[in-house]
Formats: sequence, structure tokens, C-alpha cells
Amino acid sequence: MHILNAINPILLTPGPVEMDPEVLKAMSHVAESHFSQAFCNTFGDVLSMLRRLFQSEDPIAQPFVIAGSGSLGWDFTATNFIEPGESVLCLSTGFFADAFEMCLSTYGAQSKKLTVPFGAAPDLERVEEELRACRYKALIVTHVDTSTGVLTPLEPLSAMLKRVSPETLLVVDGVASVACEEVQFDVWSVDVLVTGSQKAIGCPPGLSIIMVSGRALEVARTRKAPPASWYASLTRWLPIMQKYENKEPSYFATPPTQIIHALHASLTSILSLPLEERFRRHKEKGDQVKSGLAELGLTPVALQPEYQSNGVTAFWLPEGLSSKALLSAVLAKGVTLSAGMHPEHGSKYARFGHMGYSVMSESGLRIDIGIEALRETVIRFYDSQRQTVATEGYTEFTNQPQSITVGA
Amino acid sequence: MHILNAINPILLTPGPVEMDPEVLKAMSHVAESHFSQAFCNTFGDVLSMLRRLFQSEDPIAQPFVIAGSGSLGWDFTATNFIEPGESVLCLSTGFFADAFEMCLSTYGAQSKKLTVPFGAAPDLERVEEELRACRYKALIVTHVDTSTGVLTPLEPLSAMLKRVSPETLLVVDGVASVACEEVQFDVWSVDVLVTGSQKAIGCPPGLSIIMVSGRALEVARTRKAPPASWYASLTRWLPIMQKYENKEPSYFATPPTQIIHALHASLTSILSLPLEERFRRHKEKGDQVKSGLAELGLTPVALQPEYQSNGVTAFWLPEGLSSKALLSAVLAKGVTLSAGMHPEHGSKYARFGHMGYSVMSESGLRIDIGIEALRETVIRFYDSQRQTVATEGYTEFTNQPQSITVGA
Repeated sequence: MHILNAINPILLTPGPVEMDPEVLKAMSHVAESHFSQAFCNTFGDVLSMLRRLFQSEDPIAQPFVIAGSGSLGWDFTATNFIEPGESVLCLSTGFFADAFEMCLSTYGAQSKKLTVPFGAAPDLERVEEELRACRYKALIVTHVDTSTGVLTPLEPLSAMLKRVSPETLLVVDGVASVACEEVQFDVWSVDVLVTGSQKAIGCPPGLSIIMVSGRALEVARTRKAPPASWYASLTRWLPIMQKYENKEPSYFATPPTQIIHALHASLTSILSLPLEERFRRHKEKGDQVKSGLAELGLTPVALQPEYQSNGVTAFWLPEGLSSKALLSAVLAKGVTLSAGMHPEHGSKYARFGHMGYSVMSESGLRIDIGIEALRETVIRFYDSQRQTVATEGYTEFTNQPQSITVGA
Repeated sequence: MHILNAINPILLTPGPVEMDPEVLKAMSHVAESHFSQAFCNTFGDVLSMLRRLFQSEDPIAQPFVIAGSGSLGWDFTATNFIEPGESVLCLSTGFFADAFEMCLSTYGAQSKKLTVPFGAAPDLERVEEELRACRYKALIVTHVDTSTGVLTPLEPLSAMLKRVSPETLLVVDGVASVACEEVQFDVWSVDVLVTGSQKAIGCPPGLSIIMVSGRALEVARTRKAPPASWYASLTRWLPIMQKYENKEPSYFATPPTQIIHALHASLTSILSLPLEERFRRHKEKGDQVKSGLAELGLTPVALQPEYQSNGVTAFWLPEGLSSKALLSAVLAKGVTLSAGMHPEHGSKYARFGHMGYSVMSESGLRIDIGIEALRETVIRFYDSQRQTVATEGYTEFTNQPQSITVGA
């Protein structure tokens, strides 16, 4: 329990997340040249370790690590693999899937978005039907949408895609899934996997991490229209990543040396245990959160248990309890949760992040504390409601809408 | 002298640079939500402090801080202020100016590049002639090109532009100049100023920092073609920056919370002294480096003293001494310098970074150590040359070409 810091709230949001002290230590690495042998060694090891995290042994596939937010991977996808006018099929399960689709459209893709009721996962048969009806350059799936906690299982989707439209690229947004959900890059024939540093990987925000298959590299290399972006151009970054993975310096733009050291520390920690064990623990702790919610009579936003993420649980609040009121109350107990993220429902649900260090350290004690803070708050709310009904008296819970503005 | 670390070499490259211990401490800030009030306060203060660093009091102008390398600012410029087919005039004084021009072309700008002999600064009369001959949407100037150490004075350029083509936007790449050279954003009517975190600002790499005038904001808002980029779209980031500057949370992509804390620490330190004093010390220390080089018979790459940067000095090496050999020798003395950066001349010159904390702390002791390491190395080389001539014997200095591959 000594690591728990009494001053700072426990961060149980779906990113950023609590970090291993070794990761924080790596963040304050002294200044060094990005051309130094020491840094080349670190960056090279990071790229090799990412292959292991993605369960990829294909030497032709290539990981990329670029300064930016996780969503820079959307631009990278849009500008390198899709030519203007080409069709893409986007499976929407929330805010982030919708934003990915808007990004693709920005770069000129003809996007078709398959939407589902709020909280549902895509219907595989409907997707198959659409893939049979039209030739798509890429199928875009958000493995876990951070805004809803809905998980779209990749294995059956990949199998169906191979059967129905094998030439279509499989593009996966793994921002909220990599390192807490199984992602078998090779076996599931993923072509592009985009993620960020600040969720289950357990680093500070600031890195866009992308894994690209040999087939997708070829698509990027042989595209007719030049990439519309400079900073997100695969052909400019590819030789840089190859050189660094070979532990030699190279230059396109200055790499964020400190966060790359932090990533080295977190990947070292992640890979010190079998990945199955990591995924098992995330499922176990995620189930514990869901049981805690069920005991309080609260239901997850994700409609079906098999499509609920193991790293983030979005859950409906009791009527009369806004996400803002809930967040304030749990914060007073030393725990940070997240509000909902939806133009209409945002204030009516909240999100509990259970990924990375909080799950893997000290038997997940932080998660237990989070569940308890939530339990006490909701029970107190129920009590206050009963009291209000009985006496028409004061209630400490107000129902103000959540104040976070979403820019996109 | 206690801060000097015996294990790590002193980093005297033109970015990344040595950092204030307070900056490093801020890098390991515990995980926190980007929606927390504490982070909103920090980010808000950072944006306000940037205005002071840029010497801007115009409330309509807006600073932006985005996860990415400094060169992301090129994409931001290209996609927000220039419409496809519009003409831009690029003044080239080295590798980075050339890359900026390529980035602009990538986004469809019709770019005209004015080149000068290697080491020269742009000829103001030639620029004026070009501005009179053609209507340009923007004039693109690299204030200091990191690859050559050539400084292009902004004040006369701005005055001429206002006189000759007042409607043309003045775009300044200040990556290697902000915080070590005077940049008066308002007085010099700069429209777009792009910089990064890892040079004279004294943070780790990972932030793209951009200041935009009210006039340029209006250009971005009223452009006909939508921005070609998602991640670099000004209209998506603008409300986010306005909210955060108002210390309220907002969301477009997760901000790199730790580096923003580091930026807060470095800006606090920078602004604790009058900026004139900071610029004076950079000039003083830069002059000391140049005197040291002159004593060794070495000449700067920048041809004229008035066009030499005060933050980085590129200098020609004696014939027979490659940059690789020089760098190895000074590294053995605990100092990291940089090689040249030019397809033809790269191995024939080296670069000495004298910016930020190394200049401002402990009377610039690190710079003194760097000059001494350089002096000993060059004198030893001269000695070895004499010996070789005398005996045809072994020399420790080999003339291998520098091995850094430049991706662009």
C-alpha cells in the first residue's frame, strides 16, 4: 500500500491511467541526443518489444512510434492506405469510431458508416452483407470505443472478412484495447493497428503507436496519389523506424526521447509476464467492477456482456444523479472517474477505467478502492433520494450537465 | 558544479538540450486526468506564459500547444493558412527551410524557393523584387536554420513586407530561435510562428507550439477548401485552446500532460528574468563560442557575423577531420556536439548548440566545458597531422563520413 499517494487522487479513467513508478522515473531521463547510441538502443528495443505486444512475428510488418496523440494514427491511416475517392466501411460503436470516420472523410475517403443502437456491437451479418454489396478498400473497426466501453470482437470479424472480401484491409483502432485485450496481429490478419501510449500500455500521453502489415506497407508504397500529409507520411517515417530498430540513428522529426524511455520501461514491465496472464487479470478485475455495479443496480452502457470491454466500463447512472455530481463525490473520496462522452447521454453515464498498472499492481487494490468509492457514493445518493422523498428536504446531489466540451 | 552529471555527457547540440532540474521533475508528474481542474490550471497558465514569451499582448492572437514534433507546425501552416494552388515564397537557408517548403508543396501550395549560397542569409532586395513580381499568400522564413546556424533578421524583413505586400502572411519557423533570439510577435506583425519544445525553450521533445495572429485565424476560418488534415486542423484545435486558456477542460485529442507540466516549469523559469537579459546572455555565450572557434582557426558556416545565430553555431572542420571523428573525440571528453546536416557537406562541419539551460545556468559553465573539449580535440588533431606529415605514422582521427541518415 506504500505506493498509494494520499495527495493525488487514484486515476481510474480510461486514459490517462496510473503509471508504474519505473515509467515515471524514465520520464525524467536526462537530456540526450536522439542520435546517441544509447538512445538508438532504447528506441530499437521499444520497436522490437512492440512486435511482441502485438503478437507479431512477421518481419515484414513494421511498428511506428511518432510524437503525437493516439488519434494521429487516424490521419496516418487516412493518408497512407486510402486514396481519395476509395470506399471504406466504418463500424461505429461510439464517439471515437465516429471521429475516425470523420478523419477518413477529411482525407477524401468515401466512407460508409454502419451504426448500431447506443451500447450495441456491430452485427456481423449486417457487416458481411455490406462487404458483399460493395468493394471496400478498408474495414475500419474500433476494437474498444473508449466512449461506450463496447468491444467489437476481432477474431470472427477477421475470419468473415478473409472469407468475404480478402482484399479489404483490416484497420483496427486499438487505443483502448492494446495491452488489456488480446490482439493477435498476425493470426487475425490485421493490416493497420493504431494505438496510443496513455491507456493500457501505461505511459503518459504523447505517442502515436502504429503497427502496419507487409500488405499495407505495399499499399502505401504503391499508392497513386502522394500522401496528403507531410508529418503522417508512412514513406518518410518507414526508413527512420527501420534504422532505429536496427539501433542506428536516423532523422525525419525529433523523436520524443523521454516518452520513448517511458515506453521502454512500461513494455519491459508488460512483457515480464505472459500476455495471457495480463489479459486474464484485466478480465477478472473488469468483471469485479461489473459485479460491483450490478450490486448497486447499475447497468453497463454495453448492452451484451460478451461485448463489454475488459479495460473500461461505461455505466448508466441512477436517474437524478448526473455524471458531474458522481465525479465530484468520488473525487472527494480520492478517486477520479470519467463522465460519459456523448452529445445527448454524456451526463447520464460515467466511465470506470480498469487498465494497466492499476489492475496489474498490488492485486488491483486501486480498482478495489475505486469500486468502494463508487459504492459509497451511489448508496449515499439512494439514501438522499429516499430522504428527499420523505421530507422534500435538501439533497447534496445536483443534476447539472457535465461541463466538458467536445471539440470534434 | 554539483548539477553536472559525471555519467551523462553534457548535451550541446542544437536540440534536444540540457534541462533545468525543475523541468525534469515536472516530467515525472503523476498521472492525472486531462479534465482535472489542476491540469486545466497548468495548461491555462502555459498558454498565457507563451504569449509573454512571444511578446504578444494581442488578445485575438492564439497560442496552440499540440502533441507532436516541432515540424508538425509545418503541416499546421500548410493545411490551415494556404489553400491548394496558392503561391508561397520560401526563403531557404538550409535543410529545415527546404523541408518546410516540401511540406507546403505536399499540401498543394505553389511554392517558390529563393535559395542562397550555403551559409548565406537571404538578400532582402531579391526578396522584395520577388514580392513585387508576384502576389504571394505567405512569406515563409526560417528564423534560424538549425542545420546551418544562419539567422535571418525578422525586423527588416517584416518592415519590407508591410511596405511591399502587406496582405502577404508572415510565417516564421522559430524552432531554433524562440527563447534564444528576440521574436516580437506583435511589433513585427508575425502571423504564424511555429516552434518546438526541445530547443531554447528547454523541454523534452514532443510538443508542437504555434502562435497565430488574429489575421491568420481569420484566414483559416474563412478558407474555401476545408483543411486537408484532421489532426492539424486549426478550427478543431481553436476552441480547445480557448477553453484551456480559460482553465476549463475540453477535448479534441488527449494533451501530453507531463510535457505540458515540463513546459510550465521551463516557461516559469524563462519568464523569471527579463527576456532582454536572456537574449543578451545567449549573444554573449554565442560570441564566446565563436571566439573559441576563431582561435582554433575555424570558420562558421554562416558567412556574415550579423547573420549568425546566437543559439547554434555551425563551423567548418579542418580538412582531414570529419564530423564523426570530432564527435567521438569530444564525446570521450564528456560533451555531445552535432554533425553537419547537408547531403554534401554534412561530414565537413559540426554544430555547437548554446541555448537554454546550458547558457542560463551556472554562468554558462557547460558551454565553457564544451569550448574546452572542442579546443583540446582540434589541437590534438593539428598535432596528429603534424606528426603524420613528419612520420607517415598512425593518426587517431579517421575521416569516415557521418553515418546519420536523413529521411526527408
